[in-house]
Amino acid sequence: MFITFEGCEGVGKSTQLNLLKEYLEETGQEAIFCREPGGTSIGEQIRKVILNPENTEMADVTESILYAASRVQLISQVILPALKEGKIVVCDRYLDSSIAYQAYARGLGVDLVKKINYFAVENCMPDVTIFLDRSPAESFRATPGDDRMEQETREFHNKVYEGYKAEIGTSNGRIVAIKPDFDRNITKQMIIDVLRERGAIK
Amino acid sequence: MFITFEGCEGVGKSTQLNLLKEYLEETGQEAIFCREPGGTSIGEQIRKVILNPENTEMADVTESILYAASRVQLISQVILPALKEGKIVVCDRYLDSSIAYQAYARGLGVDLVKKINYFAVENCMPDVTIFLDRSPAESFRATPGDDRMEQETREFHNKVYEGYKAEIGTSNGRIVAIKPDFDRNITKQMIIDVLRERGAIK
Repeated sequence: MFITFEGCEGVGKSTQLNLLKEYLEETGQEAIFCREPGGTSIGEQIRKVILNPENTEMADVTESILYAASRVQLISQVILPALKEGKIVVCDRYLDSSIAYQAYARGLGVDLVKKINYFAVENCMPDVTIFLDRSPAESFRATPGDDRMEQETREFHNKVYEGYKAEIGTSNGRIVAIKPDFDRNITKQMIIDVLRERGAIK
Repeated sequence: MFITFEGCEGVGKSTQLNLLKEYLEETGQEAIFCREPGGTSIGEQIRKVILNPENTEMADVTESILYAASRVQLISQVILPALKEGKIVVCDRYLDSSIAYQAYARGLGVDLVKKINYFAVENCMPDVTIFLDRSPAESFRATPGDDRMEQETREFHNKVYEGYKAEIGTSNGRIVAIKPDFDRNITKQMIIDVLRERGAIK
Protein backbone atom coordinates (compact mmCIF):
# COMPACT_ATOMS: atom_id res chain seq x y z
CA MET A 1 0.00 0.00 0.00
CA PHE A 2 1.13 3.51 -0.85
CA ILE A 3 0.48 6.23 1.76
CA THR A 4 1.29 9.93 1.41
CA PHE A 5 1.31 12.77 3.93
CA GLU A 6 0.39 16.31 2.95
CA GLY A 7 -0.02 19.66 4.66
CA CYS A 8 1.25 23.23 4.89
CA GLU A 9 4.70 24.16 6.24
CA GLY A 10 5.19 23.64 9.98
CA VAL A 11 2.05 21.57 10.41
CA GLY A 12 3.84 18.65 12.07
CA LYS A 13 4.23 16.17 9.20
CA SER A 14 7.73 15.11 10.24
CA THR A 15 6.64 14.42 13.82
CA GLN A 16 3.71 12.30 12.69
CA LEU A 17 5.80 10.47 10.10
CA ASN A 18 8.25 9.53 12.84
CA LEU A 19 5.46 8.34 15.13
CA LEU A 20 3.98 6.24 12.33
CA LYS A 21 7.42 4.80 11.62
CA GLU A 22 7.74 3.80 15.29
CA TYR A 23 4.31 2.20 15.23
CA LEU A 24 5.07 0.18 12.09
CA GLU A 25 8.40 -0.97 13.53
CA GLU A 26 6.79 -1.96 16.86
CA THR A 27 4.12 -3.96 15.06
CA GLY A 28 6.58 -5.60 12.68
CA GLN A 29 5.25 -4.10 9.45
CA GLU A 30 7.90 -3.55 6.80
CA ALA A 31 7.77 -0.03 5.41
CA ILE A 32 9.83 2.36 3.35
CA PHE A 33 9.76 6.07 4.23
CA CYS A 34 10.72 8.65 1.63
CA ARG A 35 10.32 12.33 0.96
CA GLU A 36 9.75 14.78 -1.84
CA PRO A 37 11.43 16.47 -3.47
CA GLY A 38 14.32 14.06 -3.09
CA GLY A 39 14.35 10.56 -1.70
CA THR A 40 17.01 9.38 -4.17
CA SER A 41 20.53 10.58 -4.85
CA ILE A 42 19.41 12.21 -8.10
CA GLY A 43 16.23 13.54 -6.45
CA GLU A 44 18.25 15.16 -3.66
CA GLN A 45 20.36 16.94 -6.30
CA ILE A 46 17.14 18.19 -7.90
CA ARG A 47 15.83 19.18 -4.43
CA LYS A 48 18.86 21.44 -3.96
CA VAL A 49 18.10 23.23 -7.23
CA ILE A 50 14.41 23.65 -6.31
CA LEU A 51 14.90 24.88 -2.76
CA ASN A 52 18.06 26.98 -3.22
CA PRO A 53 17.04 30.46 -1.93
CA GLU A 54 19.34 32.03 -4.55
CA ASN A 55 17.27 30.65 -7.43
CA THR A 56 14.90 33.60 -7.41
CA GLU A 57 14.66 33.62 -11.21
CA MET A 58 13.05 30.18 -11.42
CA ALA A 59 10.02 30.15 -13.73
CA ASP A 60 6.89 28.58 -12.22
CA VAL A 61 6.75 25.95 -14.96
CA THR A 62 10.42 25.07 -14.41
CA GLU A 63 9.67 24.56 -10.72
CA SER A 64 6.74 22.33 -11.48
CA ILE A 65 8.73 20.27 -14.01
CA LEU A 66 11.61 19.84 -11.55
CA TYR A 67 9.24 18.43 -8.92
CA ALA A 68 7.94 15.99 -11.54
CA ALA A 69 11.52 14.96 -12.42
CA SER A 70 12.34 14.23 -8.78
CA ARG A 71 9.04 12.36 -8.47
CA VAL A 72 9.53 10.10 -11.48
CA GLN A 73 13.00 9.17 -10.27
CA LEU A 74 11.61 8.33 -6.81
CA ILE A 75 8.82 6.26 -8.35
CA SER A 76 11.08 4.22 -10.62
CA GLN A 77 13.93 3.76 -8.17
CA VAL A 78 12.17 3.42 -4.81
CA ILE A 79 8.36 3.40 -4.72
CA LEU A 80 7.46 0.88 -7.43
CA PRO A 81 10.21 -1.63 -6.47
CA ALA A 82 9.13 -1.47 -2.78
CA LEU A 83 5.45 -1.88 -3.62
CA LYS A 84 6.31 -4.87 -5.80
CA GLU A 85 8.05 -6.44 -2.80
CA GLY A 86 4.85 -6.00 -0.80
CA LYS A 87 6.23 -3.25 1.43
CA ILE A 88 4.25 -0.31 2.75
CA VAL A 89 5.52 2.93 1.21
CA VAL A 90 5.03 6.21 3.07
CA CYS A 91 5.96 9.42 1.29
CA ASP A 92 6.32 12.88 2.84
CA ARG A 93 4.61 15.01 0.13
CA TYR A 94 3.66 13.82 -3.36
CA LEU A 95 1.44 14.87 -6.25
CA ASP A 96 -1.00 16.80 -4.04
CA SER A 97 1.82 19.14 -3.03
CA SER A 98 2.36 19.98 -6.70
CA ILE A 99 -1.35 20.69 -7.06
CA ALA A 100 -1.49 22.86 -3.93
CA TYR A 101 1.79 24.70 -4.44
CA GLN A 102 2.16 25.01 -8.21
CA ALA A 103 -1.40 24.75 -9.52
CA TYR A 104 -3.10 26.86 -6.83
CA ALA A 105 -0.47 28.99 -5.07
CA ARG A 106 1.69 29.68 -8.15
CA GLY A 107 -1.42 29.87 -10.29
CA LEU A 108 -0.37 27.42 -13.02
CA GLY A 109 -3.79 25.75 -12.86
CA VAL A 110 -4.72 22.16 -12.06
CA ASP A 111 -4.87 21.05 -15.71
CA LEU A 112 -1.32 22.08 -16.54
CA VAL A 113 0.19 20.62 -13.37
CA LYS A 114 -1.64 17.35 -13.90
CA LYS A 115 -0.38 17.21 -17.49
CA ILE A 116 3.20 17.85 -16.35
CA ASN A 117 2.87 15.05 -13.79
CA TYR A 118 1.05 12.57 -15.99
CA PHE A 119 4.31 10.85 -16.97
CA ALA A 120 5.35 10.59 -13.33
CA VAL A 121 2.32 9.39 -11.42
CA GLU A 122 0.18 7.71 -14.05
CA ASN A 123 0.70 4.24 -12.61
CA CYS A 124 1.57 5.22 -9.10
CA MET A 125 -1.22 7.01 -7.24
CA PRO A 126 -1.40 6.81 -3.43
CA ASP A 127 -3.97 4.46 -1.93
CA VAL A 128 -4.60 6.92 0.89
CA THR A 129 -3.35 10.42 1.64
CA ILE A 130 -3.33 11.96 5.13
CA PHE A 131 -3.82 15.72 5.00
CA LEU A 132 -2.83 17.42 8.26
CA ASP A 133 -5.45 20.12 8.24
CA ARG A 134 -4.12 23.20 9.96
CA SER A 135 -4.01 26.63 8.30
CA PRO A 136 -0.73 28.57 7.88
CA ALA A 137 -2.11 31.18 10.31
CA GLU A 138 -2.16 28.50 12.99
CA SER A 139 1.06 26.72 12.22
CA PHE A 140 3.61 28.59 10.16
CA ARG A 141 6.30 30.97 11.37
CA ALA A 142 8.98 32.15 8.95
CA THR A 143 12.48 31.71 10.36
CA PRO A 144 16.00 32.55 9.19
CA GLY A 145 17.50 29.83 6.99
CA ASP A 146 14.17 29.02 5.37
CA ASP A 147 14.35 27.42 1.93
CA ARG A 148 12.93 28.98 -1.25
CA MET A 149 9.41 27.64 -0.65
CA GLU A 150 9.31 28.44 3.07
CA GLN A 151 10.39 31.99 2.28
CA GLU A 152 7.19 32.60 0.33
CA THR A 153 4.60 35.10 1.59
CA ARG A 154 1.77 34.40 4.01
CA GLU A 155 -0.61 34.95 1.10
CA PHE A 156 1.17 32.22 -0.88
CA HIS A 157 0.88 29.74 1.99
CA ASN A 158 -2.80 30.59 2.41
CA LYS A 159 -3.32 29.73 -1.26
CA VAL A 160 -1.52 26.42 -0.71
CA TYR A 161 -3.95 25.64 2.10
CA GLU A 162 -6.96 26.58 -0.02
CA GLY A 163 -5.54 24.41 -2.82
CA TYR A 164 -5.38 21.40 -0.53
CA LYS A 165 -8.95 21.99 0.64
CA ALA A 166 -10.13 22.11 -2.98
CA GLU A 167 -8.24 18.92 -3.81
CA ILE A 168 -9.92 16.98 -1.00
CA GLY A 169 -13.26 17.43 -2.68
CA THR A 170 -12.10 16.01 -5.99
CA SER A 171 -10.06 13.08 -4.63
CA ASN A 172 -12.93 10.57 -4.37
CA GLY A 173 -12.12 9.97 -0.72
CA ARG A 174 -8.40 9.30 -1.25
CA ILE A 175 -7.39 12.35 0.78
CA VAL A 176 -8.45 12.22 4.44
CA ALA A 177 -8.22 15.49 6.39
CA ILE A 178 -7.14 15.15 10.02
CA LYS A 179 -7.13 18.14 12.35
CA PRO A 180 -3.98 17.78 14.46
CA ASP A 181 -4.54 17.79 18.23
CA PHE A 182 -2.16 19.63 20.56
CA ASP A 183 -1.30 16.19 21.93
CA ARG A 184 0.79 14.53 19.22
CA ASN A 185 -0.17 11.07 20.46
CA ILE A 186 -3.86 11.75 19.93
CA THR A 187 -3.08 12.86 16.36
CA LYS A 188 -0.95 9.75 15.91
CA GLN A 189 -3.86 7.55 16.98
CA MET A 190 -6.29 9.33 14.63
CA ILE A 191 -3.90 8.70 11.73
CA ILE A 192 -3.39 5.04 12.61
CA ASP A 193 -7.15 4.55 12.92
CA VAL A 194 -7.72 5.99 9.42
CA LEU A 195 -4.92 3.94 7.87
CA ARG A 196 -6.18 0.74 9.52
CA GLU A 197 -9.76 1.41 8.42
CA ARG A 198 -8.51 1.83 4.85
CA GLY A 199 -6.54 -1.39 5.07
CA ALA A 200 -3.28 0.44 4.39
CA ILE A 201 -1.67 -0.83 7.58
CA LYS A 202 -2.53 -3.38 10.26
CA MET B 1 14.53 34.83 -35.57
CA PHE B 2 15.28 31.70 -33.59
CA ILE B 3 18.03 29.40 -34.94
CA THR B 4 19.12 26.08 -33.42
CA PHE B 5 22.10 23.83 -34.13
CA GLU B 6 21.89 20.05 -33.84
CA GLY B 7 24.10 17.06 -34.44
CA CYS B 8 25.86 14.12 -32.83
CA GLU B 9 28.74 14.44 -30.35
CA GLY B 10 32.01 15.70 -31.81
CA VAL B 11 30.49 16.85 -35.08
CA GLY B 12 31.83 20.41 -34.85
CA LYS B 13 28.81 22.38 -33.58
CA SER B 14 30.89 24.54 -31.23
CA THR B 15 33.32 25.48 -34.00
CA GLN B 16 30.51 26.44 -36.35
CA LEU B 17 28.65 28.35 -33.64
CA ASN B 18 31.79 30.39 -32.99
CA LEU B 19 32.23 31.09 -36.69
CA LEU B 20 28.58 32.19 -36.98
CA LYS B 21 29.02 34.41 -33.94
CA GLU B 22 32.04 36.08 -35.58
CA TYR B 23 30.08 36.60 -38.81
CA LEU B 24 27.13 38.18 -36.99
CA GLU B 25 29.46 40.47 -35.01
CA GLU B 26 31.37 41.50 -38.15
CA THR B 27 28.13 42.32 -39.95
CA GLY B 28 26.64 44.16 -36.95
CA GLN B 29 23.72 41.80 -36.30
CA GLU B 30 22.73 41.60 -32.65
CA ALA B 31 22.47 38.02 -31.50
CA ILE B 32 22.24 35.97 -28.30
CA PHE B 33 24.03 32.62 -28.15
CA CYS B 34 22.92 30.01 -25.64
CA ARG B 35 23.24 26.29 -25.04
CA GLU B 36 21.28 23.36 -23.77
CA PRO B 37 21.05 21.96 -21.25
CA GLY B 38 21.94 25.13 -19.34
CA GLY B 39 22.15 28.69 -20.59
CA THR B 40 20.81 30.13 -17.33
CA SER B 41 22.06 29.87 -13.76
CA ILE B 42 19.24 27.45 -12.90
CA GLY B 43 19.70 25.57 -16.17
CA GLU B 44 23.42 25.12 -15.50
CA GLN B 45 22.54 23.57 -12.11
CA ILE B 46 20.16 21.21 -13.91
CA ARG B 47 22.87 20.51 -16.52
CA LYS B 48 25.20 19.31 -13.76
CA VAL B 49 22.59 16.84 -12.55
CA ILE B 50 21.93 15.56 -16.09
CA LEU B 51 25.56 15.16 -17.16
CA ASN B 52 27.09 13.97 -13.85
CA PRO B 53 28.73 10.62 -14.76
CA GLU B 54 27.90 9.35 -11.24
CA ASN B 55 24.16 9.58 -11.87
CA THR B 56 24.03 6.11 -13.42
CA GLU B 57 20.65 5.38 -11.80
CA MET B 58 18.82 8.13 -13.69
CA ALA B 59 15.54 6.90 -15.17
CA ASP B 60 15.07 7.75 -18.85
CA VAL B 61 11.90 9.73 -18.12
CA THR B 62 13.69 11.69 -15.37
CA GLU B 63 16.40 12.58 -17.87
CA SER B 64 13.85 13.72 -20.42
CA ILE B 65 11.95 15.81 -17.86
CA LEU B 66 15.16 17.45 -16.62
CA TYR B 67 16.02 18.55 -20.17
CA ALA B 68 12.53 20.03 -20.44
CA ALA B 69 12.99 21.88 -17.13
CA SER B 70 16.26 23.42 -18.28
CA ARG B 71 14.60 24.30 -21.59
CA VAL B 72 11.56 26.05 -20.13
CA GLN B 73 13.83 28.13 -17.88
CA LEU B 74 15.96 29.12 -20.88
CA ILE B 75 12.87 30.01 -22.90
CA SER B 76 11.29 32.19 -20.24
CA GLN B 77 14.46 33.86 -19.02
CA VAL B 78 16.52 34.25 -22.21
CA ILE B 79 14.98 33.22 -25.53
CA LEU B 80 11.55 34.86 -25.45
CA PRO B 81 12.82 38.17 -23.97
CA ALA B 82 15.59 38.34 -26.62
CA LEU B 83 13.20 37.53 -29.48
CA LYS B 84 10.84 40.25 -28.21
CA GLU B 85 13.71 42.73 -28.41
CA GLY B 86 14.20 41.76 -32.05
CA LYS B 87 17.47 39.94 -31.46
CA ILE B 88 18.61 36.81 -33.29
CA VAL B 89 18.75 33.85 -30.89
CA VAL B 90 21.08 30.93 -31.66
CA CYS B 91 20.85 27.86 -29.44
CA ASP B 92 23.31 24.96 -29.29
CA ARG B 93 20.88 22.02 -29.09
CA TYR B 94 17.13 22.28 -28.44
CA LEU B 95 13.99 20.16 -28.77
CA ASP B 96 15.41 18.02 -31.62
CA SER B 97 18.13 16.77 -29.26
CA SER B 98 15.45 15.50 -26.89
CA ILE B 99 13.77 13.72 -29.77
CA ALA B 100 17.02 12.17 -31.04
CA TYR B 101 18.50 11.27 -27.64
CA GLN B 102 15.49 10.45 -25.45
CA ALA B 103 12.78 9.46 -27.95
CA TYR B 104 14.97 7.45 -30.33
CA ALA B 105 18.21 6.48 -28.55
CA ARG B 106 16.68 5.92 -25.10
CA GLY B 107 13.57 4.49 -26.72
CA LEU B 108 10.96 6.63 -24.93
CA GLY B 109 9.20 7.26 -28.23
CA VAL B 110 8.45 10.52 -30.03
CA ASP B 111 4.93 10.90 -28.59
CA LEU B 112 6.03 10.79 -24.95
CA VAL B 113 8.98 13.14 -25.44
CA LYS B 114 6.82 15.62 -27.34
CA LYS B 115 4.24 15.51 -24.54
CA ILE B 116 6.90 16.11 -21.89
CA ASN B 117 8.17 19.08 -23.88
CA TYR B 118 4.80 20.52 -24.82
CA PHE B 119 4.85 22.88 -21.83
CA ALA B 120 8.34 24.05 -22.73
CA VAL B 121 8.36 24.66 -26.44
CA GLU B 122 4.71 25.19 -27.31
CA ASN B 123 5.19 28.88 -28.15
CA CYS B 124 8.85 28.79 -28.95
CA MET B 125 9.77 26.64 -31.93
CA PRO B 126 12.92 27.43 -33.96
CA ASP B 127 12.47 29.17 -37.31
CA VAL B 128 15.33 27.16 -38.76
CA THR B 129 17.49 24.33 -37.47
CA ILE B 130 20.94 23.49 -38.84
CA PHE B 131 21.69 19.77 -38.55
CA LEU B 132 25.39 19.00 -38.98
CA ASP B 133 25.04 15.71 -40.76
CA ARG B 134 27.96 13.48 -39.88
CA SER B 135 27.57 10.00 -38.40
CA PRO B 136 29.13 9.00 -35.05
CA ALA B 137 31.38 6.59 -36.94
CA GLU B 138 32.93 9.58 -38.75
CA SER B 139 33.11 12.05 -35.89
CA PHE B 140 32.94 10.63 -32.40
CA ARG B 141 35.81 9.35 -30.27
CA ALA B 142 35.19 8.58 -26.57
CA THR B 143 37.77 10.26 -24.33
CA PRO B 144 38.49 10.27 -20.58
CA GLY B 145 36.44 12.88 -18.72
CA ASP B 146 33.41 12.40 -20.96
CA ASP B 147 30.06 13.40 -19.43
CA ARG B 148 27.16 10.98 -18.86
CA MET B 149 25.82 11.33 -22.41
CA GLU B 150 29.20 11.19 -24.15
CA GLN B 151 29.98 7.98 -22.22
CA GLU B 152 27.13 6.17 -23.93
CA THR B 153 27.82 3.30 -26.32
CA ARG B 154 28.51 3.58 -30.03
CA GLU B 155 25.15 1.87 -30.60
CA PHE B 156 23.42 4.63 -28.57
CA HIS B 157 25.08 7.36 -30.62
CA ASN B 158 24.13 5.58 -33.86
CA LYS B 159 20.50 5.63 -32.71
CA VAL B 160 20.80 9.35 -31.98
CA TYR B 161 21.96 9.87 -35.56
CA GLU B 162 19.12 7.77 -36.97
CA GLY B 163 16.70 9.73 -34.77
CA TYR B 164 17.90 13.02 -36.25
CA LYS B 165 17.54 11.66 -39.77
CA ALA B 166 13.98 10.58 -39.03
CA GLU B 167 13.15 13.99 -37.56
CA ILE B 168 14.30 15.82 -40.69
CA GLY B 169 11.57 14.16 -42.69
CA THR B 170 8.80 15.27 -40.33
CA SER B 171 10.00 18.83 -39.75
CA ASN B 172 8.31 20.43 -42.77
CA GLY B 173 11.62 21.82 -43.92
CA ARG B 174 12.55 23.45 -40.60
CA ILE B 175 15.59 21.21 -40.19
CA VAL B 176 18.26 21.66 -42.86
CA ALA B 177 20.95 18.99 -43.05
CA ILE B 178 24.43 20.21 -43.91
CA LYS B 179 27.30 17.80 -44.50
CA PRO B 180 30.35 19.40 -42.87
CA ASP B 181 33.35 19.88 -45.14
CA PHE B 182 36.88 19.22 -43.90
CA ASP B 183 37.45 22.96 -44.40
CA ARG B 184 35.53 24.63 -41.60
CA ASN B 185 35.22 27.84 -43.63
CA ILE B 186 33.40 26.04 -46.42
CA THR B 187 30.97 24.61 -43.85
CA LYS B 188 30.58 28.09 -42.34
CA GLN B 189 29.66 29.52 -45.74
CA MET B 190 27.11 26.74 -46.39
CA ILE B 191 25.45 27.52 -43.05
CA ILE B 192 25.40 31.27 -43.67
CA ASP B 193 23.93 30.71 -47.14
CA VAL B 194 21.09 28.60 -45.71
CA LEU B 195 20.35 31.07 -42.90
CA ARG B 196 20.32 33.99 -45.33
CA GLU B 197 18.06 32.18 -47.77
CA ARG B 198 15.64 31.50 -44.92
CA GLY B 199 15.73 35.16 -43.88
CA ALA B 200 17.05 34.23 -40.43
CA ILE B 201 20.13 36.46 -40.81
CA LYS B 202 21.34 39.07 -43.27
